[in-house]
Amino acid sequence: MVRYGGIEAGGTKFVCGVGSGPGDLDLAEFATTTPQETIKQAVAFFNAREPLTAIGIGSFGPIDPNPHSESFGCITSTPKAAWRNFDFAGAIRNALDVPVAFDTDVNAAALSEFRWGAARGLDTFVYVTVGTGIGGGAMMNGRLMHGRTHPEMGHIRIPHDHQRDPFPGNCPYHGDCLEGLAAAPALEARWGQPAHLLPAGHPAWELEAEYLACGIVAWTCTLSPQRIILGGGVMSREELLPMILGKAAALLNGYIEVPEIVRPQLGARAGVLGAIALAQQVQ
Amino acid sequence: MVRYGGIEAGGTKFVCGVGSGPGDLDLAEFATTTPQETIKQAVAFFNAREPLTAIGIGSFGPIDPNPHSESFGCITSTPKAAWRNFDFAGAIRNALDVPVAFDTDVNAAALSEFRWGAARGLDTFVYVTVGTGIGGGAMMNGRLMHGRTHPEMGHIRIPHDHQRDPFPGNCPYHGDCLEGLAAAPALEARWGQPAHLLPAGHPAWELEAEYLACGIVAWTCTLSPQRIILGGGVMSREELLPMILGKAAALLNGYIEVPEIVRPQLGARAGVLGAIALAQQVQ
Repeated sequence: MVRYGGIEAGGTKFVCGVGSGPGDLDLAEFATTTPQETIKQAVAFFNAREPLTAIGIGSFGPIDPNPHSESFGCITSTPKAAWRNFDFAGAIRNALDVPVAFDTDVNAAALSEFRWGAARGLDTFVYVTVGTGIGGGAMMNGRLMHGRTHPEMGHIRIPHDHQRDPFPGNCPYHGDCLEGLAAAPALEARWGQPAHLLPAGHPAWELEAEYLACGIVAWTCTLSPQRIILGGGVMSREELLPMILGKAAALLNGYIEVPEIVRPQLGARAGVLGAIALAQQVQ
Repeated sequence: MVRYGGIEAGGTKFVCGVGSGPGDLDLAEFATTTPQETIKQAVAFFNAREPLTAIGIGSFGPIDPNPHSESFGCITSTPKAAWRNFDFAGAIRNALDVPVAFDTDVNAAALSEFRWGAARGLDTFVYVTVGTGIGGGAMMNGRLMHGRTHPEMGHIRIPHDHQRDPFPGNCPYHGDCLEGLAAAPALEARWGQPAHLLPAGHPAWELEAEYLACGIVAWTCTLSPQRIILGGGVMSREELLPMILGKAAALLNGYIEVPEIVRPQLGARAGVLGAIALAQQVQ
């Protein structure tokens, strides 16, 4: 029987799954520790189940997803030192002797929303997650986008009024790039409490919506997506999405229309489902 | 005999051509006035030559390049009132009775650099022109990018330090978007003389390089191109390209590499050649 597995590899946890879609999914999750320990747990999960046709991995990064590259399948310049230059796809392939598909966590989530969720029927859309980081995956003309390596949509530079917001940004590489200003750790560092504890009506949300609207403008002007899916922990704040929409429309000012901006439909399972969808594409 | 024509429709001039590539090109150019008068001149050019298999148009915009849309072939929200909502492709198709391909001027130039110039052998790259406006065309996975309509890469928002640069920007829609800060009219308005008269070493170029480097960062983080081709009148200033490269590298700070940034190879003929290449793709 044809059966696929998926690994959603996040910086804090791994989700492993076997199945064919949202209605048929056998899952396990565990903390991301060292590559040795974490891969061992993933391998044990799959070994305890029926043999698989292929496994897909949607990984935190930056990674090398180019099958023609020497470092294909590796995590590259991550700040997580133990994982830097780790041959992730190779480790899974060797341990389980199956073909392995390898892409970013956000491309996996994008593919999953395309197959089963908020991007069904589209061919050009963006999936952005705003959580411990800001990352974007995208499909263009019906194919996941990679380009030279893969997009790093959270690291664009946006207007930052230092008088209004003296917080210098906390991206270790760029200071006040979008991620450094608007990911959850930036909210916590700026306001002195975790994002999920900041109450409705707190000025944090007005500023957050402005920064994310600048991101929407950059991605819209550069890619012209049919739709943008905005997920991640920070976006679970209900009032944020309509605020972003209003501010993005004001910024674009009728020159071009704001694309539809919607919430993801697959929630916490988007990543592992997308990894399974990646596996289904393996030739 | 199979023979293709192309129209490069710019805001100030039209270039019409018939041929098969850079070495076989019969050209004419004239000023862009009203649609009636300008289309009449284009039609007269093609009528004076052998019948064509198809004609491609690379047009200023915004335009509707989606063949499945009702307004396909039209120029849409341009500030040039006489051309707004003009059915450009329809006018050419009706007058000359040939299939017409219709895309942006920058996508045409991108396609032309892909066929004959600085993007040969790539599948994912960006072509940006910095002149009277800032526009970008791109190819992703071997296909020209359109998405919902088409990119408008010059209209991203970038950091703008009002103390250092009090010029408020002159984009009629967005004020200080990248185009409003860094296209040729912005240089002239800020410094009181046309860009081409500003001498080497003038502080204009340092600032210009910083703004364009922010554009490079946004397009690189969003699209991950293999190469960026930077053309247009402003880029004819020789020292600008290396300054942009250095500043883009400093901004990306090793997190991801700066893609190759090169000059176009087809110069003033890129647009009309790209329009011909569009015609060659017509089914």
